Amino acid sequence: MVKTTSMLPIRDCVFQTPGYTPGEQPQTNDYIKLNTNENPYPPPPEIFQDIQAELSKVRLYPDPVSTQLRQAAAKIFNVSSEQILAGNGSDDILNIALRTFVNPGETVAFLDLTYSLYETLTRVHGANLVTFPTNEHFQLDRPLICPEAKLIFLASPNPPVGQHLRRESLEETCEKATGIVLIDEAYVDFSPYNHLDFLTKYENVIISRTMSKSYSLAGMRVGFGIASRAIIEQMDKVRDSYNLDRIAQALATAALNSHPYFEQIWEKVCQTRERLMVSLKDLDFLGFDSDSNFVLASPQWISAADLYHQLKERKILVRYFNHPRITNYVRISIGTDEEIDRLLEAIKKIKYGG
Amino acid sequence: MVKTTSMLPIRDCVFQTPGYTPGEQPQTNDYIKLNTNENPYPPPPEIFQDIQAELSKVRLYPDPVSTQLRQAAAKIFNVSSEQILAGNGSDDILNIALRTFVNPGETVAFLDLTYSLYETLTRVHGANLVTFPTNEHFQLDRPLICPEAKLIFLASPNPPVGQHLRRESLEETCEKATGIVLIDEAYVDFSPYNHLDFLTKYENVIISRTMSKSYSLAGMRVGFGIASRAIIEQMDKVRDSYNLDRIAQALATAALNSHPYFEQIWEKVCQTRERLMVSLKDLDFLGFDSDSNFVLASPQWISAADLYHQLKERKILVRYFNHPRITNYVRISIGTDEEIDRLLEAIKKIKYGG
Repeated sequence: MVKTTSMLPIRDCVFQTPGYTPGEQPQTNDYIKLNTNENPYPPPPEIFQDIQAELSKVRLYPDPVSTQLRQAAAKIFNVSSEQILAGNGSDDILNIALRTFVNPGETVAFLDLTYSLYETLTRVHGANLVTFPTNEHFQLDRPLICPEAKLIFLASPNPPVGQHLRRESLEETCEKATGIVLIDEAYVDFSPYNHLDFLTKYENVIISRTMSKSYSLAGMRVGFGIASRAIIEQMDKVRDSYNLDRIAQALATAALNSHPYFEQIWEKVCQTRERLMVSLKDLDFLGFDSDSNFVLASPQWISAADLYHQLKERKILVRYFNHPRITNYVRISIGTDEEIDRLLEAIKKIKYGG
Repeated sequence: MVKTTSMLPIRDCVFQTPGYTPGEQPQTNDYIKLNTNENPYPPPPEIFQDIQAELSKVRLYPDPVSTQLRQAAAKIFNVSSEQILAGNGSDDILNIALRTFVNPGETVAFLDLTYSLYETLTRVHGANLVTFPTNEHFQLDRPLICPEAKLIFLASPNPPVGQHLRRESLEETCEKATGIVLIDEAYVDFSPYNHLDFLTKYENVIISRTMSKSYSLAGMRVGFGIASRAIIEQMDKVRDSYNLDRIAQALATAALNSHPYFEQIWEKVCQTRERLMVSLKDLDFLGFDSDSNFVLASPQWISAADLYHQLKERKILVRYFNHPRITNYVRISIGTDEEIDRLLEAIKKIKYGG
């Protein structure tokens, strides 16, 4: 007897959820790519120095617990390496947190406007979601209080606006939470404010970090969860036992050890960001000051959807979200100065003709 | 208020489960490593040919859906690329299958002696497990009938014995299953028997493959799920949206395109395996004919635990499982001829002194 699809035991939570839609990733080089918040600057050449030795060992399993990588990360974050879980991108960390702390049917809370993967992961897991409204400036102006939430996802800086969340609101959220608070610091290296100090104050806090943006390694999928040993010990059971391959471990370790190079890059990106914001305001955009490597801005003379399409025709990719609260905004990743000049030039041509 | 560990909302299914223990992975070169079924031969040099181009793009996200890799795999497996899910190792595929088809509290079935990760994944997921007894030859001599199972994991060849499962038993298992049957073919390239043809006969079948063993890429974590489009479409929602990094995709694609090289390697490994079995029998071991790149063998003159330790002292790693049914067996991965000669030499010295 041939089985038909309708007989497959697909979980309702999976069947009912549309998959996550990542930003466009054209596999050609003909776009100025300002749509998925990659770092415009490559990592320094020295991180590739020992790559041949690793390539000669690809037939052998990697270190299952990413020892050297976690040790390098521990130095940067000033914690013990037992407080660090290495993930296949920080997306892996978010997923592991859900699967460690939330039973299907239990509740996960996050802001109404934030990283859209939180919703997809929560739905696919079969958990309930509670969204918490941000104010008219897309800010969290009071603590997120949700007693039934086993897990609260809060990103700071919070995409797609890119501003850090108010520290007092975050502190009170952590104090009052009955479950875990995961502070997603994917963009924190472009911001003056981080929350690593929360780890010594609140035992229910996990901080996630990624090497995709600030460390120029989006292509290698490396992220971290940082928390108490008790939390990391449980999350480690949910982690795939060999979740990071040899080359990812080696390049990420070398990148962390080249930390001073990246600090210069972050400074440079922040300078370009400030210049872009000034220019966009001159070009009649409304925008938000950003603590990230992107800005959210709203053109006052064209629809954002139109602008997105016209820029794409000119081979410049920015991100347009089909979300009611930001329907007239585009999110622009900070490129090199030359890329941003070409973006501004293109916007001028669209606005003024030519 | 400082939260204490006991207040953390750790899921019972996670808290109660010990983590998976992978085989020893010494990060030094001083062992003859015959413990985790890696391929003793490296991939051919041409797979590294275009690696510089990929390394120059590490700051950019990889292709989220591994298009080229899936296309290369589709050619090898003679299916459409929409029938293929690329995983971060086949462990990722096993985990995705569980999370797509099994609600916590529902049932997963597998053999009493098989890949031990099935049990860990099932427990961490909060699902019930039913184990099905193999016969005295560790074989499945009748179909695995378990009407309440949403998912049945069957490995063929089945570790740690390494023999393929009887085709008639597998056929009847697929016919009678009310849920999904995942046939884990991690070792199939060392066997004359595979089950790709089941995909056209049974809509409830998933076949998983890995590049860790036969394609000499254990260090890169690449595996596949192969099934109907309807199954792959649902599993794809559960997959991490960027689960494979750039270098893993590039090396795995190149390795699949060097298929003829690997076919020679598999032949070589099988020849060494036959020679090892003959020699072990001469040295008074009981063993099973194997369809894999390892053999399970029981020394009749020393305890297996003792043999494991004495070999380890001589810098040879084999695998010893603390499992009641195979307490006097060791599992030996097939190394190069030279490595196997050194193993046999060491066993002779342990047996006869010297």
